[in-house]
Amino acid sequence: MAKITTQSPLAPTRFPDLPVIDGVRFATTQAGVRYAGRTDVMLAELIPGTAIAGTFTRSSTRSAAVLDCQEKIGGDASSGAAIIVNSGNANAFTGTNGAKAAKAVVTAVADTLGLPEARVFSSSTGVIGEVLPDTRITAKLAELKEGLAADTIEPAARAIMTTDTFPKGASAQVTVDGQTVKIAGIAKGSGMIAPDMATMLVYIFTDAKIARPALQSLISAHTQNTFNCITVDSDTSTSDTLIACATGASGIDVTGNADFATAMHDVMLDLAHQVIRDGEGATKFVEITVSGAANDADARTHALSIANSPLVKTAIAGEDPNWGRIVMAVGKSGAAADRDLLGISFGNVRVAENGWVHPDYDEADAAAHMKGENIKIGVDIGLGSGTATVWTCDLTHGYIDINADYRS
Amino acid sequence: MAKITTQSPLAPTRFPDLPVIDGVRFATTQAGVRYAGRTDVMLAELIPGTAIAGTFTRSSTRSAAVLDCQEKIGGDASSGAAIIVNSGNANAFTGTNGAKAAKAVVTAVADTLGLPEARVFSSSTGVIGEVLPDTRITAKLAELKEGLAADTIEPAARAIMTTDTFPKGASAQVTVDGQTVKIAGIAKGSGMIAPDMATMLVYIFTDAKIARPALQSLISAHTQNTFNCITVDSDTSTSDTLIACATGASGIDVTGNADFATAMHDVMLDLAHQVIRDGEGATKFVEITVSGAANDADARTHALSIANSPLVKTAIAGEDPNWGRIVMAVGKSGAAADRDLLGISFGNVRVAENGWVHPDYDEADAAAHMKGENIKIGVDIGLGSGTATVWTCDLTHGYIDINADYRS
Repeated sequence: MAKITTQSPLAPTRFPDLPVIDGVRFATTQAGVRYAGRTDVMLAELIPGTAIAGTFTRSSTRSAAVLDCQEKIGGDASSGAAIIVNSGNANAFTGTNGAKAAKAVVTAVADTLGLPEARVFSSSTGVIGEVLPDTRITAKLAELKEGLAADTIEPAARAIMTTDTFPKGASAQVTVDGQTVKIAGIAKGSGMIAPDMATMLVYIFTDAKIARPALQSLISAHTQNTFNCITVDSDTSTSDTLIACATGASGIDVTGNADFATAMHDVMLDLAHQVIRDGEGATKFVEITVSGAANDADARTHALSIANSPLVKTAIAGEDPNWGRIVMAVGKSGAAADRDLLGISFGNVRVAENGWVHPDYDEADAAAHMKGENIKIGVDIGLGSGTATVWTCDLTHGYIDINADYRS
Repeated sequence: MAKITTQSPLAPTRFPDLPVIDGVRFATTQAGVRYAGRTDVMLAELIPGTAIAGTFTRSSTRSAAVLDCQEKIGGDASSGAAIIVNSGNANAFTGTNGAKAAKAVVTAVADTLGLPEARVFSSSTGVIGEVLPDTRITAKLAELKEGLAADTIEPAARAIMTTDTFPKGASAQVTVDGQTVKIAGIAKGSGMIAPDMATMLVYIFTDAKIARPALQSLISAHTQNTFNCITVDSDTSTSDTLIACATGASGIDVTGNADFATAMHDVMLDLAHQVIRDGEGATKFVEITVSGAANDADARTHALSIANSPLVKTAIAGEDPNWGRIVMAVGKSGAAADRDLLGISFGNVRVAENGWVHPDYDEADAAAHMKGENIKIGVDIGLGSGTATVWTCDLTHGYIDINADYRS
């Protein structure tokens, strides 16, 4: 959204070692779309036959690039493919001029790499409302093509950052019939995070072989309990995009393989958690688990109501085990709840049970948990067996600093 | 919620002159419920025949006092009545002990004033999760009865404050058949403001004569476009209560009178606006009008999505005419919108039209509007004739200060 600030206190110590995924090569450049002195365009080239699936924001004001990707997902996969991403400009709410700019980039990438346009997927992230300066990107395509290399996924993760304070990557390796397939993913996201389908920009690559519909089912299902379960500020982006690419270069078919499905889930969840750890102004990573709801949908509604409550989020920032605000957030959510059945815990500390403070509750114990960096809030609705877990961060002066003072 | 901070910069210069309403007397005292050195209990006594109507929070975790009031509204009005309110403790999420404490106060008030319990309405506001120390209140009832007077509505408005930085009052006078009826109301509220039925604590008195069902219809309808159209932080209280009392002391029947209905609406809207002007940390009063939506419900959904967006609210705090964030908030709301039909204005400055920036738009004009204290945001969805107006404030460091550092 705005300028890059100092690194989040919740950042991992370093970017993880991601495996090289056969069948995909990356290149990055400084195109000066908006930022100076840093990379802001990344190109990924994929071999013929790569299965590509995606999930996208459900915003009714989604960007030109998102609309274009949505049209293309599911098409013929026989040729090679490419993903072109720029940071600094979201090219959202830019009308027909924005659509033309997005198409100009896609056409130029297709020409440069000898691909059909239908196999070129583009994403743009950054300021809303300004038409993408497409020629700054297209002028760099020859250079990008020259620079394509298999071992440069970390620079790719850096080039797509906006207010992110650290690049985000995750990987997994899965043994299938004695052979190994690899998954590596990168993501960007820090503010305007309340996914309603996929979120932010996420690119996941695997050398596994998998039928496209199977890959799509897998990421659609996993999106529901990973990216769609995180929220920084309840604000949903116009540009949210997740694209998963299975190059098949390993020759190992993972269609229907449970271990692969689990590994893909783990990579997605890891990336989703990294987005929260880079939440604008975040100082606490918060996991909220709701159990005992009438059904899973109600549990999710309660959990997101808690996660999006400014009063809950500021209490966490203040290290205050303020369970009254949890009660409030459950009460306002609209999902079924009975005040006199509610149970609440912070970490392992049982705070409330059956609608009132637990007889053994000692606020000092809960306060000690709130001082940690990783906060766990448990809420038992006491009505049924519905459960949900969501992740969020606290609401601090840092969020106001980032968003009140700079144009996103 | 927390401590009383310095006065809101949006506060009116002084408490308004409210007319004495025949048929109601007020008293206040320092009961030490939670606060020291200030009044925290107010008692209002109403003459026999007073019609009493109310609207209440729809939270599923509403407080004992709210549940008790909801049961009583609509009962026999032949006897006198009373309203007893304390600040400092909401007696919410306190289970059966909380219900007993609320009943103890009601019973004692009924005994002290010689009223049936069914005509004693109580409210509690303040910290959630602690049982009301009812004896601190009941010990003061004799003193309160002694102190009842007709011209002390301003002290009553002060006694019900929590994080409010100024007392809130509004009035109207209506001429009916050449005679005058009066309306006076008081309110408290500053944080945890996103009404879902009525909001906060609001007490409105009139000497008009009106049938109770007519009074109820009137305030229920007006609540929809006054208190239910404001939001400070999207968080809905467990204690929201609005009680309207028509003493009938003037002898003038206003049932069905349009001027009275308008005056009641104006008093309610005035009080609702004062709550926003005292929004925690507020430096801007923001009016958001959505037109051209598919229907009024959609317009309201869009307007509240904008009003509750942390990114919109921080942009306003930063005096940034950031219309990209308005687009985002419309897009995420879930109500129907077409990106390419959207129009947006700040004050009289037309920013965007048909899905892109207006050709004559000069950001300096919009920036000038954003520097003012009263911000107007207009959004035309371009789809139909649905409209809605809601009011909110900006999101500032002051909100974080108030809510991260103190227990509500």
